[in-house]
Amino acid sequence: MNSGSDQSPKNVHTGSVNAPSRSIFFVSDGTGITAEVLGKGLLSQFEGINFRQIRIPFVDSPEKARECLQRIREVHEQNGIRPLVVLTMMDQEISALLRQGDALILDVFEAFIAPLENELGVRSAHTVGRTHGQTRREYVNRIAAMNFAIAHDDGISDADLINADVILVGVSRCGKTPTSLYLSMQFGLKAANYPLIPEDFERDRLPETVLPFRDKLFGLTISPEQLHKIRQERRPDSNYAALDTCRKEVAAAERIMRREGIKWFDTTSKSIEEVAVQIIQAINIKE
Amino acid sequence: MNSGSDQSPKNVHTGSVNAPSRSIFFVSDGTGITAEVLGKGLLSQFEGINFRQIRIPFVDSPEKARECLQRIREVHEQNGIRPLVVLTMMDQEISALLRQGDALILDVFEAFIAPLENELGVRSAHTVGRTHGQTRREYVNRIAAMNFAIAHDDGISDADLINADVILVGVSRCGKTPTSLYLSMQFGLKAANYPLIPEDFERDRLPETVLPFRDKLFGLTISPEQLHKIRQERRPDSNYAALDTCRKEVAAAERIMRREGIKWFDTTSKSIEEVAVQIIQAINIKE
Repeated sequence: MNSGSDQSPKNVHTGSVNAPSRSIFFVSDGTGITAEVLGKGLLSQFEGINFRQIRIPFVDSPEKARECLQRIREVHEQNGIRPLVVLTMMDQEISALLRQGDALILDVFEAFIAPLENELGVRSAHTVGRTHGQTRREYVNRIAAMNFAIAHDDGISDADLINADVILVGVSRCGKTPTSLYLSMQFGLKAANYPLIPEDFERDRLPETVLPFRDKLFGLTISPEQLHKIRQERRPDSNYAALDTCRKEVAAAERIMRREGIKWFDTTSKSIEEVAVQIIQAINIKE
Repeated sequence: MNSGSDQSPKNVHTGSVNAPSRSIFFVSDGTGITAEVLGKGLLSQFEGINFRQIRIPFVDSPEKARECLQRIREVHEQNGIRPLVVLTMMDQEISALLRQGDALILDVFEAFIAPLENELGVRSAHTVGRTHGQTRREYVNRIAAMNFAIAHDDGISDADLINADVILVGVSRCGKTPTSLYLSMQFGLKAANYPLIPEDFERDRLPETVLPFRDKLFGLTISPEQLHKIRQERRPDSNYAALDTCRKEVAAAERIMRREGIKWFDTTSKSIEEVAVQIIQAINIKE
């Protein structure tokens, strides 16, 4: 079994290094992604506490449950603090085993499946591996959307723009690429993006290629100061990164978008999740 | 307020068209992504029921809560079936307002915040917009990882491979691109990917470029039948898509990976989420 050491290398520690850390396990008979998304959302409400996050996916047999329990017990013994466990477990026999451990168990399906069964008047399937609630068609759509996003990043390809759900425009490094990828991955939208570049500013117009698709065009903008910081990391002390260049480009881009009546979003103090959801709202209002 | 019509165009209907549908609202004072991920996970346990999914994000004022209630009431009146509401709401005053509606409310934070406060011995912040539990550094890492993944898709760039966390290899269209993007977006891993192409099969070796990084190399494979289907959609009736080509390429790729001792994963009947989590487990075992 592989559950012995499966923290993501990037996600292991949160908070400062010195305070003692509270361990939180994301345990599932599937990938554990639902447990992790929910768990992180909950933890964000408790700032100032160090959480050590440990992912234990694919716990789909009593044997693996016992190994998982053993791991939780070891962590408890090591630091003397009772661990937290966020559990999304379809198999009730296995989740009963896990409850025997000394930990605060936040059992997602236990909390919600029973009320749902009651409301819907049917028993749930209690089966694992349903690809996160997507139908096969949704899944295939999402993969196609991701391939579309990568093929239409940064104006690489003009082909097939008619099939885009969204086309983002904005100055280089304002957040078009991550937003496009997120829209495709999380929501299955075919998102293309086009940079606004100096020759667009000279012509003081949107690129010809995107003009026929005004109904699905959205702009992104960013504060010149933040843009300067981001570009500095990429090409230090270049003209491209100079604050003055950033100011001029942002002003020119916003002027074009305003005149063309393109709805735009400011990414300066927003996460890509927030920007993506705002774009989806704007699409739905248009339709 | 924008909550009047904010279903994702791709996510509105699930299930067959004829059966009456049960509406489920994902309501949040933030993006509602946590509510949606959890809600979809729960719904996947109730197959055969049509769910109409409606996302209402950014419900962050009493006024917006009342509009949201009105929308829930309208849906109820339209089809006569009590709606479901998955709620991730930090502001307790607003969530109290929403509880006045006639709906089955699955209140995620109510279910888990109180036990957590009790266990941790502190009050939670009850504040919105914490970028989904990521620290600023984690967020910046994730964006950098996404930019890395797109810059290192399909062997586009050899530069900077030393900074990759993972390098995926496999035949064209076996799932490398979506898996790389998912690893970067969900887990903040810098993922590069390299196609195995006919000249690699002739030399019967991995591409020279990736050889120095054997410790972070992983393979993906796929059944020749499925590969044939995927390639047919891309280039119908080409030699590239022919079942015989697919059989030969998959066999050659697996032979190389086996001989080089590269751990590999079969994407044929797995979602990218499952493959990504398996890769993360494998990385952690190596480290």
